[in-house]
Amino acid sequence: MIPKKNEIEAAYLRIQAHVHNTPVLFSSSLNKTIGAEVFFKCENFQKMGAFKMRGAVNAILQLSEKQKQAGVVTHSSGNFGQAVALAARNLGVKAYIVMPSNAPQVKKDAVKGYDGIISESESTIAAREAASEKIIQQTGATFLHPSNNTDVILGNATAALELCNMQPNLNFIIAPVGGGGLLAGTSLASYYFGKNCKTIGAEPMEADDAFRSLQSGRIETNNTANTIADGLKTNLGDINFPIITKLVDEIIRVEESEIISAMRYIWERMKIVIEPSSAVAVAGLFKEKNKFKNKQIGVILSGGNVDLLQLPFGR
Amino acid sequence: MIPKKNEIEAAYLRIQAHVHNTPVLFSSSLNKTIGAEVFFKCENFQKMGAFKMRGAVNAILQLSEKQKQAGVVTHSSGNFGQAVALAARNLGVKAYIVMPSNAPQVKKDAVKGYDGIISESESTIAAREAASEKIIQQTGATFLHPSNNTDVILGNATAALELCNMQPNLNFIIAPVGGGGLLAGTSLASYYFGKNCKTIGAEPMEADDAFRSLQSGRIETNNTANTIADGLKTNLGDINFPIITKLVDEIIRVEESEIISAMRYIWERMKIVIEPSSAVAVAGLFKEKNKFKNKQIGVILSGGNVDLLQLPFGR
Repeated sequence: MIPKKNEIEAAYLRIQAHVHNTPVLFSSSLNKTIGAEVFFKCENFQKMGAFKMRGAVNAILQLSEKQKQAGVVTHSSGNFGQAVALAARNLGVKAYIVMPSNAPQVKKDAVKGYDGIISESESTIAAREAASEKIIQQTGATFLHPSNNTDVILGNATAALELCNMQPNLNFIIAPVGGGGLLAGTSLASYYFGKNCKTIGAEPMEADDAFRSLQSGRIETNNTANTIADGLKTNLGDINFPIITKLVDEIIRVEESEIISAMRYIWERMKIVIEPSSAVAVAGLFKEKNKFKNKQIGVILSGGNVDLLQLPFGR
Repeated sequence: MIPKKNEIEAAYLRIQAHVHNTPVLFSSSLNKTIGAEVFFKCENFQKMGAFKMRGAVNAILQLSEKQKQAGVVTHSSGNFGQAVALAARNLGVKAYIVMPSNAPQVKKDAVKGYDGIISESESTIAAREAASEKIIQQTGATFLHPSNNTDVILGNATAALELCNMQPNLNFIIAPVGGGGLLAGTSLASYYFGKNCKTIGAEPMEADDAFRSLQSGRIETNNTANTIADGLKTNLGDINFPIITKLVDEIIRVEESEIISAMRYIWERMKIVIEPSSAVAVAGLFKEKNKFKNKQIGVILSGGNVDLLQLPFGR
């Protein structure tokens, strides 16, 4: 029961006026180091700085007029909260963003900057869900899940669709995996629009729930998630897990030091700002470079939102 | 006696197989903030990470075969040393780079990585010049000055030439000024290839020798140069100063805090890594934004080589 090819094509057409078709970059020195041709899909250059814009726009555009009038709600202190706020504003819809009261001010400011209406809650999942539920009761707003929502997954898939259209002979696409919405979407696009293109997930060793879920066949969780890749601490969901199970070839796990080194490599060599979650995919590429020798590999650089006052270099 | 249009065109054709025609980027949010259309010429994406590659390649390609066999020498602990090393290697020429023995190891490693032959010297100008002279005596190598050399200036001019070709209706081009090689080249290209396009220099207040030189009509120096823009501490030279005097409209001076804010703005909003010297031009744009309202402005982002362990954010 995985989504069909034409559903991704429809999402692509639906959202294209509202998102950037981001550039695909490469680095000669990186290619030499890996012994392969690597193509980076730069979602760090996407609107609001991350691929999340694609899923947010697609999900909102799929709402009925009545639903749009009531608004949307999500609980996310990260990129999806910002994406929903900006996508909603651009589409003339109200966005209620539930954020933990202890979320960094810079993240609250970003959501406010996109005219999101912030509701503060305790930082537990239960408290956030309760706060969202209250808003839904009061306003009739539609809840948008950051990763376990078919329209979000279809929107996310359009990044890899664009990449496959530009580089039709990819052997692999690597994407980071946290909640699973990007990896599920990427695997769908690579399956439908690639030529025997395998999808590989990359995950911090410190939050390797997706790796363990693929091994056990059921959704596993993390007891701890001490990773710098703060976008990848969440778990798979019942909508994306079956897609990932069917279409993802493998999950590569990487250490924190490998994530930081990969992030530094991309900043220094390619002069672009990527966030730690994106660096997880690059770290996977470096870690398994023997597997990728002489191949064509696409890498989804998922986003570029970092706090410049809290950089990990030199740690 | 300023260089002619066809000399820049010849330099462009000469070097184009050896350098990148770098992308021109813009930011909708920056345009909104400034109330103008701003086009960033991204020399941070140039080979070795700075526009200096253009001048170095052009100067080396202008040598006779005999000169090429003897090699080239420069004294620079910064981007020009790296540019000469890489350009020379790519063109099959030996490069001797005189560097102060107390230069950061990361800069020595960069030159070594491009197969440059490092000679260490004391850090005074006199010691560097003596060390260069000694190499010239011993090897017959040709000295390349980082900024006060016509072939270097002509090579540098090709960045603004490409920008004018892409954006033919620019009203202004802003470039940072240190030794004057980039600003002189930029002003030539903007004069010959723009349509009434004015050239503006941007300079740290802490090292405002170019501003004072244009006022007094002779080359002024800095007693101190406590600026984060370490590429801009040097003084104008007798070859580039007449060009700058004739073709540059104005020098905007900016404070250190304005440089750091501009650098942060570009990293955060555009997700690209620029070095402080580039940020000086962006800071000039912000500082005089009333002047630029409703205009088309090109900005030369001169380079992206920064030490990620020594970032200024949060200072």
